Amino acid sequence: MRIAIALAERGRSLSSPNPSVGCVLVRDGRVIGRGWTAAGGRPHGEAMALAQAGDAARGATAYVTLEPCAHESTRGPACSDLLIAAGLARVVIGCQDPDPRTNGAGIDRLRAAGIAVETGLLESEARASLAGFLARQTLGRPFVTLKLATSLDGQIALADGTSRWITGDAARAHAHVERARHDAILVGGGTFRADAPRLDVRLPGIEHRSPRRVLLSRMGDAPPGWTGIAAPEDIATLDGTDWLMVEGGAEVAAAFLARDMVDRLLLYRAPVLIGRGMAALGDIGLSDLAHAHGRWRLADTRLLGKDRMESYQRVR
Amino acid sequence: MRIAIALAERGRSLSSPNPSVGCVLVRDGRVIGRGWTAAGGRPHGEAMALAQAGDAARGATAYVTLEPCAHESTRGPACSDLLIAAGLARVVIGCQDPDPRTNGAGIDRLRAAGIAVETGLLESEARASLAGFLARQTLGRPFVTLKLATSLDGQIALADGTSRWITGDAARAHAHVERARHDAILVGGGTFRADAPRLDVRLPGIEHRSPRRVLLSRMGDAPPGWTGIAAPEDIATLDGTDWLMVEGGAEVAAAFLARDMVDRLLLYRAPVLIGRGMAALGDIGLSDLAHAHGRWRLADTRLLGKDRMESYQRVR
Repeated sequence: MRIAIALAERGRSLSSPNPSVGCVLVRDGRVIGRGWTAAGGRPHGEAMALAQAGDAARGATAYVTLEPCAHESTRGPACSDLLIAAGLARVVIGCQDPDPRTNGAGIDRLRAAGIAVETGLLESEARASLAGFLARQTLGRPFVTLKLATSLDGQIALADGTSRWITGDAARAHAHVERARHDAILVGGGTFRADAPRLDVRLPGIEHRSPRRVLLSRMGDAPPGWTGIAAPEDIATLDGTDWLMVEGGAEVAAAFLARDMVDRLLLYRAPVLIGRGMAALGDIGLSDLAHAHGRWRLADTRLLGKDRMESYQRVR
Repeated sequence: MRIAIALAERGRSLSSPNPSVGCVLVRDGRVIGRGWTAAGGRPHGEAMALAQAGDAARGATAYVTLEPCAHESTRGPACSDLLIAAGLARVVIGCQDPDPRTNGAGIDRLRAAGIAVETGLLESEARASLAGFLARQTLGRPFVTLKLATSLDGQIALADGTSRWITGDAARAHAHVERARHDAILVGGGTFRADAPRLDVRLPGIEHRSPRRVLLSRMGDAPPGWTGIAAPEDIATLDGTDWLMVEGGAEVAAAFLARDMVDRLLLYRAPVLIGRGMAALGDIGLSDLAHAHGRWRLADTRLLGKDRMESYQRVR
């Protein structure tokens, strides 16, 4: 399952409108097929892995991050039918598909065909890899990552707005990889006017992975090459956007936090002090410290040059 | 030497007016004496270790964190003379004593008596354990630790001043141990009036280790039980204070930072967001981000419950 989750990462932000699902086929202790959702959403990971395995799939076990779909579409057959036709003996599933067209129906169909089905293996890791899709299904909006690059004392710029550079090369490169993992990046009008940000992925080999650019402003208008929205809630309307990164500035970040619309914090902290500058966040509507606790759980941390990256998941 | 440094910690903030020095005597691979500077400064660590070893010290090796003193005083003999009289074969020293009454003279005296002397073993760790004494000798003031307890976004309180509690029990207990390691704790007038802090050590068994309380205010006056000073530079006048902790608030912290009078940052960060509240620091006089870099080096970090402690050393 760990390999299947790693494979799914290959399709992340490319597989739209489908979630990127990873699949590994194993027989007699050997991997005989690997797949992930291809760019554009087809073929699915199961189909790719089955094509690799060919006849060897008969009697094999499939590890798949998401419940195989139960619904045929004009774009291809249902994966549960493909697995049955290939003669699989056993299917191990990371997490169930909340899409009402599947939601247990894929599992039922496999079992009815005599295939042994297990669910929930590495479920939290599988869910994390599918968080964009799951947020769409359950919250009706993209999964939102809020990125902040701060000093040790939580400032994102000097008082005059200077923010180049607080973090170093390694942290900035990491942030560009994170951009490539998202379907869209959003900034507010203040950041747009002050920085005219390109928000592209400036790393050799993945420049083409630059996400869609979204501008949040009072009027909801936007220049060419940008999508404009007028309120945080409008991210629900962004087609093909399961993974959204909010990059700035402090008022936009606070607006998403105040609405409890941030699912992941991505913090880069440099070992510098700024003092009175620009704070990372505006008013998030917190009136009692007790309400601040228990909301964020450290999910990952690493040293990037002299800076430290920390990622926190919203506890829901 | 590592053992000697750990022993020196036992005398920290108790050994005033002397630095706490650790000493380990070894002969034939066995530890035959251990010592550290006693409360009040006498006996010195070497004398304690030699008393334990007795005649066994003849031909032994002494590991001592600081160069043995070369100057007799009314309070006791010079340690270099004690080591010579005990018939030591070898003395290994962590760092040289910058006190002009010793400063190499202790080493010279040992060598003149035929004792093999090595210096600089674990020097940076030895210097860190003696940083209060060394700051007094070289900077003419105590070693200053600035303690900050913040949210992930660098706030120390809500906008209304509420700061109970941002960090949890484990972090607060750690901070109380840190208090016990200091000779004095300083706050500004704002913190004094708002919190009327006790600044004592509230941990079973070390309540008596509560440090001296210092109030920094414009007039330099102070209530009973407190010492008043009118400017950060006045910490130089605090007798018997080699280790000073600055606990609040934001303007006092900024005043010490603006004067480059902070030697160590002690950060406690809770996994909470506050948004627009009270920032950890006031104006530290930073006009160019380039000047902020290269000043702080991570020295230690650990998880304390859900909070994270980070300690940074000023790079000088």
